[in-house]
Amino acid sequence: MSDTFSVDVPADVPESAKATYIENYRAITHGTKRLMLFAGDQKIEHLNDDFYGDNIHIDDACPEHLFKIANSSKIGVFAAQPGLVARYGKKYSDINYLLKMNSKTHLVKTNQKDPHSRMLYSVEKAVKLRDQSGLKIRGIGYTIYLGSEYEDQMLAEAAQLIWDAHQNGLLVVLWIYPRGTAVKDEKDPHLIAGAAGAAATLGSDFVKVNAPKKEGFNSAELLKEASLAAGNTGLVCAGGSSTSAEKFLTQLYDQIHTGGASGNATGRNIHQKSLSEAIRMCNAISAITIDNADVKTALKIYEGE
Amino acid sequence: MSDTFSVDVPADVPESAKATYIENYRAITHGTKRLMLFAGDQKIEHLNDDFYGDNIHIDDACPEHLFKIANSSKIGVFAAQPGLVARYGKKYSDINYLLKMNSKTHLVKTNQKDPHSRMLYSVEKAVKLRDQSGLKIRGIGYTIYLGSEYEDQMLAEAAQLIWDAHQNGLLVVLWIYPRGTAVKDEKDPHLIAGAAGAAATLGSDFVKVNAPKKEGFNSAELLKEASLAAGNTGLVCAGGSSTSAEKFLTQLYDQIHTGGASGNATGRNIHQKSLSEAIRMCNAISAITIDNADVKTALKIYEGE
Amino acid sequence: MSDTFSVDVPADVPESAKATYIENYRAITHGTKRLMLFAGDQKIEHLNDDFYGDNIHIDDACPEHLFKIANSSKIGVFAAQPGLVARYGKKYSDINYLLKMNSKTHLVKTNQKDPHSRMLYSVEKAVKLRDQSGLKIRGIGYTIYLGSEYEDQMLAEAAQLIWDAHQNGLLVVLWIYPRGTAVKDEKDPHLIAGAAGAAATLGSDFVKVNAPKKEGFNSAELLKEASLAAGNTGLVCAGGSSTSAEKFLTQLYDQIHTGGASGNATGRNIHQKSLSEAIRMCNAISAITIDNADVKTALKIYEGE
Amino acid sequence: MSDTFSVDVPADVPESAKATYIENYRAITHGTKRLMLFAGDQKIEHLNDDFYGDNIHIDDACPEHLFKIANSSKIGVFAAQPGLVARYGKKYSDINYLLKMNSKTHLVKTNQKDPHSRMLYSVEKAVKLRDQSGLKIRGIGYTIYLGSEYEDQMLAEAAQLIWDAHQNGLLVVLWIYPRGTAVKDEKDPHLIAGAAGAAATLGSDFVKVNAPKKEGFNSAELLKEASLAAGNTGLVCAGGSSTSAEKFLTQLYDQIHTGGASGNATGRNIHQKSLSEAIRMCNAISAITIDNADVKTALKIYEGE
Amino acid sequence: MSDTFSVDVPADVPESAKATYIENYRAITHGTKRLMLFAGDQKIEHLNDDFYGDNIHIDDACPEHLFKIANSSKIGVFAAQPGLVARYGKKYSDINYLLKMNSKTHLVKTNQKDPHSRMLYSVEKAVKLRDQSGLKIRGIGYTIYLGSEYEDQMLAEAAQLIWDAHQNGLLVVLWIYPRGTAVKDEKDPHLIAGAAGAAATLGSDFVKVNAPKKEGFNSAELLKEASLAAGNTGLVCAGGSSTSAEKFLTQLYDQIHTGGASGNATGRNIHQKSLSEAIRMCNAISAITIDNADVKTALKIYEGE
Repeated sequence: MSDTFSVDVPADVPESAKATYIENYRAITHGTKRLMLFAGDQKIEHLNDDFYGDNIHIDDACPEHLFKIANSSKIGVFAAQPGLVARYGKKYSDINYLLKMNSKTHLVKTNQKDPHSRMLYSVEKAVKLRDQSGLKIRGIGYTIYLGSEYEDQMLAEAAQLIWDAHQNGLLVVLWIYPRGTAVKDEKDPHLIAGAAGAAATLGSDFVKVNAPKKEGFNSAELLKEASLAAGNTGLVCAGGSSTSAEKFLTQLYDQIHTGGASGNATGRNIHQKSLSEAIRMCNAISAITIDNADVKTALKIYEGE
Repeated sequence: MSDTFSVDVPADVPESAKATYIENYRAITHGTKRLMLFAGDQKIEHLNDDFYGDNIHIDDACPEHLFKIANSSKIGVFAAQPGLVARYGKKYSDINYLLKMNSKTHLVKTNQKDPHSRMLYSVEKAVKLRDQSGLKIRGIGYTIYLGSEYEDQMLAEAAQLIWDAHQNGLLVVLWIYPRGTAVKDEKDPHLIAGAAGAAATLGSDFVKVNAPKKEGFNSAELLKEASLAAGNTGLVCAGGSSTSAEKFLTQLYDQIHTGGASGNATGRNIHQKSLSEAIRMCNAISAITIDNADVKTALKIYEGE
Repeated sequence: MSDTFSVDVPADVPESAKATYIENYRAITHGTKRLMLFAGDQKIEHLNDDFYGDNIHIDDACPEHLFKIANSSKIGVFAAQPGLVARYGKKYSDINYLLKMNSKTHLVKTNQKDPHSRMLYSVEKAVKLRDQSGLKIRGIGYTIYLGSEYEDQMLAEAAQLIWDAHQNGLLVVLWIYPRGTAVKDEKDPHLIAGAAGAAATLGSDFVKVNAPKKEGFNSAELLKEASLAAGNTGLVCAGGSSTSAEKFLTQLYDQIHTGGASGNATGRNIHQKSLSEAIRMCNAISAITIDNADVKTALKIYEGE
Repeated sequence: MSDTFSVDVPADVPESAKATYIENYRAITHGTKRLMLFAGDQKIEHLNDDFYGDNIHIDDACPEHLFKIANSSKIGVFAAQPGLVARYGKKYSDINYLLKMNSKTHLVKTNQKDPHSRMLYSVEKAVKLRDQSGLKIRGIGYTIYLGSEYEDQMLAEAAQLIWDAHQNGLLVVLWIYPRGTAVKDEKDPHLIAGAAGAAATLGSDFVKVNAPKKEGFNSAELLKEASLAAGNTGLVCAGGSSTSAEKFLTQLYDQIHTGGASGNATGRNIHQKSLSEAIRMCNAISAITIDNADVKTALKIYEGE
Repeated sequence: MSDTFSVDVPADVPESAKATYIENYRAITHGTKRLMLFAGDQKIEHLNDDFYGDNIHIDDACPEHLFKIANSSKIGVFAAQPGLVARYGKKYSDINYLLKMNSKTHLVKTNQKDPHSRMLYSVEKAVKLRDQSGLKIRGIGYTIYLGSEYEDQMLAEAAQLIWDAHQNGLLVVLWIYPRGTAVKDEKDPHLIAGAAGAAATLGSDFVKVNAPKKEGFNSAELLKEASLAAGNTGLVCAGGSSTSAEKFLTQLYDQIHTGGASGNATGRNIHQKSLSEAIRMCNAISAITIDNADVKTALKIYEGE
């Protein structure tokens, strides 16, 4: 960590929580402006689809797998619901945690009802969990489906959550996905830039968006508009479904160095592997995101050389 | 109870409630990791269908029957709504109670409206009931219909309920059933594993699911995926509609020893019998669940030999 | 009142409210286990239909009529909304009151929208009304439409209301009617027994149901299933629309002595009469319900002999 | 004011608020049992339709017109939303105010959605406004659309509002209009009597209803049923759209002396006139309502003789 | 600022907040009765459409652009959501801020669902933000869609917001747009006057409406009805989409001097320009609104002469 590294503390962090905020910011960015987020928050959203089945290592069948990975590799922060963290956290107390505060299943599809993911419980309880347990709870996460008929409820819950988190020195990562009957193209770069701007408007520290796509265009180039719109809110891209390590790492490198992203948020590309391979994958990703390594260096780490 | 038996206390149980949590855990598991839950919570859900009619002993027509059974047999915990417990609890003060906090009737079917079972009252009141009455209230129960259009409300109520229960040293059992317009096969093993994973994610101590079914497969084998997905959350199967004692006990044995289940949650297979037969059935079930007996031994207990 | 009469106080009545609960129970049952409830709570539900028109005495056109009857006859408790009680209570301060806490009009029919009757205000306010005014407020009433799409809200409000009432030593009477698109036969005896069981499950002291009906069966006989299902919750039947006194009193006698009912809840058969006739009707009903008189004796009272 | 005039204080007015309630009652009735309510609460309900256009004096285009009228004429109480009162009240601090607590626009028609008028803010805030400002806030008003699919919410808000108002010594006037898909004839006399009975049941001090209409019947005669049903709740009729002064005053006289009404609630027939004419109209109405004058005397006042 | 300038403080501003209210009023009006509002609150409503694309200067792509403009030009107040203000406010602490408390995206159109913009968080938090940060937070903004099926929720939130703001000495600007299935002509002058009257009724200090339009009529003339209806609530018009500076400034001048408006609320016509041009545009607008300059003088300022 550079001695000259400084953290811009938002105005909704009160004096009393400033030191905590700065400590949390430094911890999950390793003293950079970049975030390596390991996403372990899909057990409700995707039920068991991401954790058991063809091409998924059997290690992934048990929830503890996620904690073992986070515990033994270099990551920025591990995102999971507070309930899961409560069940395994004491055994893995060195991990930096980000509590994901809302979740829904994928059972009800948009053509039946627009997506709505409700706050599981208040940030106040998350803060109490941190203070009672001594766990390294560094931040709070929340998903908004922009363009859903229920976006009003998610926008309001998110705004209040950011307030409550900042009041207690916790960082916030918003997951923002345009989704609902009214959304024709979820990956449209202009729409994703709108999502990034909405995150800034809500006062989030980081925003996780899907990588934009447009026929005939380079995704990392398309990301630039969103990175600009996010302003001083750090933008990270979702990792998406599993792909080859080389493709994944190259894409991440480009998102950062071409697209202006501030890191990554990766789940399946890590945890669907065996424990040892998952650890190497985490370290490879962190090499790019945190240590500014090139793809070649990162691949060597992944390959265990 | 083994001297070496230890209880893993989740991180959302504060220091002040730890001893209570451990005592409650030991009480309802008899110092094992297994739960024998006697389900007396169906008087709203099934109205009088489970308690009066053909093939149901007349003893079952009066609610006190449930308490008489729980009082005179070996069980882990007796689940019923707090109102019913309030009416009979003082007369049966030795029973270990688990308060079922939500209920709906089966009158409105899914093709009319997706299922929604709302919290009857807050855990705070349940805790007050425990503390005012001195009843052995050990835990809290709640049902989630995953895949219902109202799952967001049930997920949030469940998460808050778990928090509140753990803060007060109470155990939690979630009933999770995939149900709603969007759910095509409620017994699908992969979906039931998803339900088990959701329970873990919410931080529940135990989860009650339906036994999985798939044409041409053994149900106990199919249960393995769910047991893995539940992680350190104990998984128990619903008993379902009445069947022969032998079939029932064999199935339970297999769920535990093949499927990895942590016990049982049984209602109709117990209370639809006369008092004396119901007591023997409870004891037979407990022999398998708690005392690790084989089916033959359990059957003898049931037959009163 | 028998010296040996004892009251079973539910476990959700705290030590501090026990004496009040017992006093209230004795007052409205006259030291029996039977309840004579005079229902004056229909001015919102039926608007002016029950109070003005053909075959209704003009005395009934003014709300004070109800209070005059309750004040001059032998009843157990007079049920009315808190607002009406607030307007006339000080003039009629000897009456035992039961505050009916929810109401809806009959204007919107089930084929337009399932019935939903919302709590008018909290039990906390009812308790304050009791304590501020010194009125003999003995209990709380609430209606649930089981099988309505809104039953979840009414079940939850009822459960909380029972808790709050018992915490303050107040008795509870639930009105439970199966009603809604999903309900094919509101008078089905098995369904009504289900309603009685639901009342027990919610912890109610008394439950008011409609008298069951089934082609070719005796209604009082049919009531037995419900009386059993109610357990130690007292079951009373609604009086229904006006009929001859003899028929009404015979039916009441049979409900108690054949059907196992614990009393009556009667409105129109009382208040649609002139003041003097209404008073005699109250006294006749109380003779059967409270004093265990036979029909002949009761009829003489009604006829003023 | 007669020396012998006494006020029946409802039981939900606590001892501490009794003197305030009596003072408020006397102030707005001028020591009679009659209410002259000047309605200035239609700027949201009817938007600018009642205040600008053909046959409306230009004086009415500015909201201050209402305050000027109320300030310079004899009225009982001036009804307006708390926000409007906050903007002009300090300049017109001698007026007796009744704060209208809910409002909706007429843009969404019943064939699109049943009417729902939500509480703007709590009575607690209205009380604070009274106490902070020193304004003569005497009472609270609220509109219920009986028969709307949302009547449950309005009934509950009204009941709570009455409680809160009475606890603070404030009078309550309910506006009750049967309206919604389920309501076939809003002016049906039996239905309007039902509305009056509902107001009594909710504990309101006064109720404003529309004058009943039935082909071939005299409206004032038809009103009798409602006046009876209202009991000791004072019933006043809405003034309706503008008409000739003579017709209006005659109708008012008949409503009181034939129909049993306790006064009037008049808006458009007053404020759509120039300031001087509006003041004379107020005084004419008050002559009938408060001073028990005949129509001829009132008309002379209106004509400025 | 004139020495004789006085501020009419509404009655819902308590004694303790009066000095703050007056200071805030003077600050954002520069001691006039006129408001120059720079609208930076569209990043959620219009997503990235107003900030990136053809005919929009690239300076506008980053949220900080808005703050740079507000910081370097003469404006009355800068409106933005509290989250955005929290992220940049400490760097730009000289700006007068108005916190826009609700927002929705334009993704869901009226033909899918009527517009509903929910409060992001409470005014209480906005006040805390002001007090903790020391930022010059002068007022609160909120949008109501009159005629939406959800207007009841927005009317209630707005009324409470005004109360809470005034209690803390904060000014309020309501954005009121008639919109929804029921609204046929959003620019109808009579309807816009209704919106202005509604703002007055709710007690707002200022109201922002769209400029009225009617075939064959002059918009500034049409605005007169609304200015009258607004009473002592200041009426300002939305700037609308980008147009030529001359046309814009002329229109503003006419709105004030012909239409009776109290200023302007301008967004796109300012921020879609480069920083230097945007600053000159702000200054030109302020010349007309605050300094009472004519169009020619203002245009010279814009052209940087």
